[in-house]
Amino acid sequence: MIIDCHGHFTTAPDLHVLWRETQKAASARGGDTDPPYPQISDDLIREAIEPNQLRLIQERGIDLTLFSPRASAMAPHVGDLAVNIAWSRRCNDLIRRVVALYPAHFAGICQLPQSTGASLDAAITELDRCVNELGFVGCNLNPDPSGGRYDSPPLHDRYWYPLYEKMVDLDVPAMIHVSGSCNPGVHATGAYYLSADTIAFMQLLQGDVFRDFPALRLIIPHGGGAVPYHWGRFRGLADMLNRPPLAQHLMRNVYFDTCVYHQEGVDLLLAVIDTSNILFGSEMIGAVRGIDPTTGRYFDDTRHYIEQSRLSDAAKQDIFEGNARRVFPRLRLVS
Amino acid sequence: MIIDCHGHFTTAPDLHVLWRETQKAASARGGDTDPPYPQISDDLIREAIEPNQLRLIQERGIDLTLFSPRASAMAPHVGDLAVNIAWSRRCNDLIRRVVALYPAHFAGICQLPQSTGASLDAAITELDRCVNELGFVGCNLNPDPSGGRYDSPPLHDRYWYPLYEKMVDLDVPAMIHVSGSCNPGVHATGAYYLSADTIAFMQLLQGDVFRDFPALRLIIPHGGGAVPYHWGRFRGLADMLNRPPLAQHLMRNVYFDTCVYHQEGVDLLLAVIDTSNILFGSEMIGAVRGIDPTTGRYFDDTRHYIEQSRLSDAAKQDIFEGNARRVFPRLRLVS
Repeated sequence: MIIDCHGHFTTAPDLHVLWRETQKAASARGGDTDPPYPQISDDLIREAIEPNQLRLIQERGIDLTLFSPRASAMAPHVGDLAVNIAWSRRCNDLIRRVVALYPAHFAGICQLPQSTGASLDAAITELDRCVNELGFVGCNLNPDPSGGRYDSPPLHDRYWYPLYEKMVDLDVPAMIHVSGSCNPGVHATGAYYLSADTIAFMQLLQGDVFRDFPALRLIIPHGGGAVPYHWGRFRGLADMLNRPPLAQHLMRNVYFDTCVYHQEGVDLLLAVIDTSNILFGSEMIGAVRGIDPTTGRYFDDTRHYIEQSRLSDAAKQDIFEGNARRVFPRLRLVS
Repeated sequence: MIIDCHGHFTTAPDLHVLWRETQKAASARGGDTDPPYPQISDDLIREAIEPNQLRLIQERGIDLTLFSPRASAMAPHVGDLAVNIAWSRRCNDLIRRVVALYPAHFAGICQLPQSTGASLDAAITELDRCVNELGFVGCNLNPDPSGGRYDSPPLHDRYWYPLYEKMVDLDVPAMIHVSGSCNPGVHATGAYYLSADTIAFMQLLQGDVFRDFPALRLIIPHGGGAVPYHWGRFRGLADMLNRPPLAQHLMRNVYFDTCVYHQEGVDLLLAVIDTSNILFGSEMIGAVRGIDPTTGRYFDDTRHYIEQSRLSDAAKQDIFEGNARRVFPRLRLVS
């Protein structure tokens, strides 16, 4: 079985996207932060999923995708916490409908309502709702709800601890994932995402989150940003900053996905990072949707890179399925 | 011959560092931005260099280091442009003294006086002085003088064009290098540098700088940040954004150094990036000063990784010397 830990609903129905525009306009006028939500038929959801994600995962032989709202549309810098609460609930409810229609193919990952400077109480409440009422198996945590200012406390700060505590209680991991970039000089999928991944790892390196939460599990997407390529730098920095070796300090709790879109990059990831810390992911339909002219395959068909690697079959199976089942134990309840 | 394209004077004499503190204090009070500079004897400079950079480059068999002021101390966010002009001149004059004492071992790379929102006239003037009067062979260009806000125009913006024009006139390249991070959540050498490298590449990808300046040469340090590891992503993004293939669009003009501190990372760089776009660099004594317990060698002894790679001897020699002589043609005037 192959579980893709990183998929977003990038093709959500227009009615859902239009509702968001209505919400933004209304809340900007000081009006309702949760205006009436349109009727979206099951057929509209099928039309959004079947020719897109479902077609591709079937073509590529993926069994199950851990599916969350579109990352670039989370946009927690838009509006206040109330706006984010309503938007997150609408997005998560829509994911729930996808999962209900295709329970064999999708499991739910929720967006959390966050807002720079706000308490995490609303995120905790929504996480609880999504896990306990909607059957979701994980969440996306935005380390920088500002969209590029990095003005929230670093991930090792106690600001995040109530959320970490809730995640441990519910036995769900988080993928650390920013949303769109508010800075026109910092391209979202070509710069901001990779930077945020690298910054997240370094913040964790500087702190003691996993001493305090030994059962917490965090996934850094996009192959860990720059981290595996600079693994020597990070090992050396841990040493210079008097942190324990990374294997003990972070790598019992941190996972990287395989959203690296060429063979050499995936080979590096597999060579440097222990197999047990790698989860299969593709993030399709996402940042890079074209076909690589040097291979004739989709850039984001990451299954192929892993198949072509030198790993043993057992190691490949850990990356494709076994590790995801350890990191997302609630998958046993849904698939 | 082995030329290290990336060295900073991280061990500058205390008197120089103290002058900077005096300058900052004076200018913060509205006083002199260029207070009297102390007498620093040649012996003090020798004491700063000989047990440090000179010892290590001799131990490692490096012949020539392209040497610039300490990157983290450039701090162009401190004070206004006048403060930066005075600080840059003092720093560059000090580099000139190192080069004068050890002309066989060091060639000068200048710091440019920049300030967010200010014109680049002062940078152009200082670049001219450093090249034409001090015999320098290149410069460091800071794409984010704010220290982390990324609020300067992107590198493809015409804001930078007068400086690019001057660089082409003088036939000198720039290394794109930020300074210290002003954000306590974004560690300088573990997060900000690598992010800035990645952002710089993506900014260049989005623009047409090299269509307009076909002779311009820019070096992205730290092995290109996250770029070679995510080479497929960048190739795919160029395609999605209707940019030409990277080989034509950027890779006639962009170079990566080898400041990647483990064998697997350097091997990836050498496998993915054409040899002609790679310059030997170590950035010692810099971000990572310890010894890798897995190899018994300094993390930043990057010569060793290249020696151990599968490249041909001719390709290694290009990386060690030939490419640097092409990118820094003024080296022929000084060594």
